[in-house]
Amino acid sequence: MEQIAPPVLVVGWAPDGALRILDQRRLPGEVMMRDLRTVEEIADAIRTLAVRGAPAIGVAAAIGLAVAAGGAEPEEVERAAATLRATRPTAVNLMWALDRMLVVARATASRAAPARRDALREEAERIRAQDAAMCLAIGEHGAALVESGMRVLTHCNAGALATAGIGTALAPLYVAHARGAKLQVFADETRPLLQGARLTAWELAQAGIPVTVLTDGMAASLMARGGIDLVIVGADRIAANGDVANKIGTYALAVLAKYHGVPFVVAAPMSTVDPHTADGSAIVIEQRDPAEVTHLNGVRVAAAGAMVYNPAFDVTPHTLVTRIVTDRGIVAPPYVFAPNSALLPPPA
Amino acid sequence: MEQIAPPVLVVGWAPDGALRILDQRRLPGEVMMRDLRTVEEIADAIRTLAVRGAPAIGVAAAIGLAVAAGGAEPEEVERAAATLRATRPTAVNLMWALDRMLVVARATASRAAPARRDALREEAERIRAQDAAMCLAIGEHGAALVESGMRVLTHCNAGALATAGIGTALAPLYVAHARGAKLQVFADETRPLLQGARLTAWELAQAGIPVTVLTDGMAASLMARGGIDLVIVGADRIAANGDVANKIGTYALAVLAKYHGVPFVVAAPMSTVDPHTADGSAIVIEQRDPAEVTHLNGVRVAAAGAMVYNPAFDVTPHTLVTRIVTDRGIVAPPYVFAPNSALLPPPA
Repeated sequence: MEQIAPPVLVVGWAPDGALRILDQRRLPGEVMMRDLRTVEEIADAIRTLAVRGAPAIGVAAAIGLAVAAGGAEPEEVERAAATLRATRPTAVNLMWALDRMLVVARATASRAAPARRDALREEAERIRAQDAAMCLAIGEHGAALVESGMRVLTHCNAGALATAGIGTALAPLYVAHARGAKLQVFADETRPLLQGARLTAWELAQAGIPVTVLTDGMAASLMARGGIDLVIVGADRIAANGDVANKIGTYALAVLAKYHGVPFVVAAPMSTVDPHTADGSAIVIEQRDPAEVTHLNGVRVAAAGAMVYNPAFDVTPHTLVTRIVTDRGIVAPPYVFAPNSALLPPPA
Repeated sequence: MEQIAPPVLVVGWAPDGALRILDQRRLPGEVMMRDLRTVEEIADAIRTLAVRGAPAIGVAAAIGLAVAAGGAEPEEVERAAATLRATRPTAVNLMWALDRMLVVARATASRAAPARRDALREEAERIRAQDAAMCLAIGEHGAALVESGMRVLTHCNAGALATAGIGTALAPLYVAHARGAKLQVFADETRPLLQGARLTAWELAQAGIPVTVLTDGMAASLMARGGIDLVIVGADRIAANGDVANKIGTYALAVLAKYHGVPFVVAAPMSTVDPHTADGSAIVIEQRDPAEVTHLNGVRVAAAGAMVYNPAFDVTPHTLVTRIVTDRGIVAPPYVFAPNSALLPPPA
C-alpha cells in the first residue's frame, strides 16, 4: 500500500525518545512542536487541548506513558496511567489506549527495567502505527468516492490534526490528492470553537489542497448554486442503525445536502461504531460552557441577559447518510451494525 | 391603534433639537446615546455603523440633514445631502429619504431661513413617524401568526435597532408580547458580524422577552427536537414572485424549516418589494471583506492561505416562504407583486 504522509507531525516520537506533539493551541498563527517527558507535562498537554482529536489523544497518552513511566516500578506506571486517564474522562480512545498499555505493563512487571521500558515503547508505537494505518485505510476506501474536479464541503476537523495519520473525514481527500485529483475543499468555520477555520483550513493549505473558509450559515447558499459535489464529515459515535453523532452543525448539513441532492458521506474508523447503541436517540448530548458562544477571545459579544444553547454535537439520522466510509470498507444503507458483525472489531 | 414603544430610542430627536442616536458599535456592552449636529458627525456615524439597518439609516439621514443644514443656503443643503448620500452608496432607504428631504428643500428655497429650517424638520419628523408606524403595522398584522407559548427562531437583526420603531421581523413578537403572549425567542448569532448575539438578543432582553442565543449551525438540532414553532426573519429585498434576499444564513433556515414542517415567515415593509425584479436570480449578491470571517476582534482565527467565501446575503425561493407579513397586511402564496398591484406603494 502506498504511503501518504500527513501534512505535519501531530503526535509521535522525538529523536531523543520524548513524546513530540504539535501544540494546536497555537494554530493557525504558529507551528510549535513540543517535546514532553513527564507525566505532568503530558497530562497538561491533553487537558489544555494542546493535543486534541480522539485518536491523537489516545496515541499521545500511550507514547506519553511509555516516555514518562517506561521502566518505572509497576505501581508508578499505574499511577501515571491514572493521572493521564483523568485528563479527559469521557475520551474513549484515551481509556482504550491506556488499557492496552497497562495490559503490557502488567504482563512484563517481573522483568528488568530496560525490558519493561522497551515493551511499553513497542506497544505505544504499535498503537501509533495502527492509528496511522487506520487513517490510510479510510483514505484508500473513501478515495473511490472522490473524483477530480470535485468541490467538497467538510465541517469541524476530522483531519490529520485529530489523528496520528492523515485523519478520518479528510483521509479520502488526501489520498485522492496524492493520486493527482484536483479538489477544492470548503471548510465550515464550525462555531463555536472554529476548528474548521483554525485547523482544517490550516492542514489542507499545508498540504497544498485549495481550501475556502465559510461561516456555518453559508453552506446552503453554495449548495443552491450547485457549488458542492460532496459533503464528507467525521463521527464521534455511530449507532447500530447508522445514526451518526458528530460536531454540532453536522445535522444541518445533512438536511441541506439531502435537499440539494448532494451525497452526504461519514468517514470514521469502525471503532466509532457502537453496536450496543440501537439508534441516535440513545446518545446523550453534552451541553458545553455558554462562554464558548458568548465570548470571543475573552471579549463578550453576546448580550448579557440572554440564555445560551450550546450542545457539543447533534445526531444525523441514518436516512440522510449516503455512505459510511470505514477502515474496513465502504458501508451502504441499510446500515445494520450487529454486535457479531464481521465488519466490527473483535470483542476486547 | 395602541402604541407599543421600542425597548430603546434608536434614532430620533434630542431635547435640544439635535439628532440623537444609540451608538450600536458599543452594544451589547454599553448603552451610549450620541447627539450629533454637524454633517461630518452624522456622515461618520452612518459610515462607521454607529447607526445601522436600512430604515434607521434613512431616518438618521433625514433628521441629520434637517439638523445640520436646516435653514442653510440651498446650495449648502444640496452639498450636505450629497455628503450623507455617499456614506452608504447602496442603501436604498438613505437615497429615498434624502430625495424626499431635497424635494422639500427645493420647494421652500425661496422662503426665509427659519421657514426653510422648519419645513425640513417637519419632513424629517414625518419620515421618522412613518417608519415607526410602518413597524407597528407590520407588528399588528404579524401578531395574528404568533400564539402564546410559541418558540420563535430569528436570524440577524430586523428589530427595533434597525428602525425608528419596533422593527420588522421582531415587530409581531413585540406586539404579541405587549398583549400578554408568553414567547421564547431563539436568536441565531449570525456570523460573521454577530448581529443576532449582539443586537437581537440585547433588544429582546431589554424588552423582557426571554431570548436564547445559539450558533448558526445549532438551529437544525433545535428543530429536530420539535423545539421551534415559527421562524421569522426580515428581508433586504423581495422579488415580484416572492423570492426573498436577506442576510446570509436565511436560506439555510428556510430549507430546515421546510424539512421540519415549521412555518417560515418573512416580515418586511411593502417598500422592500421590488416588482421590477422578476425573481431572486436577478438579485446580485455582494461579496464582503474576507477579514470579517478570518479575524475576530482583530485577531486572525482562520488559517492564512485559505480563501474566503463571504456573501452578504442569500436568496430564499418563494416556495419556502409560508407567509410574507407587510405593513399592508399578510400576503399568502402564490406571491404576485405586480407593479400596479393595489398592495404596492404608489409610484414615486
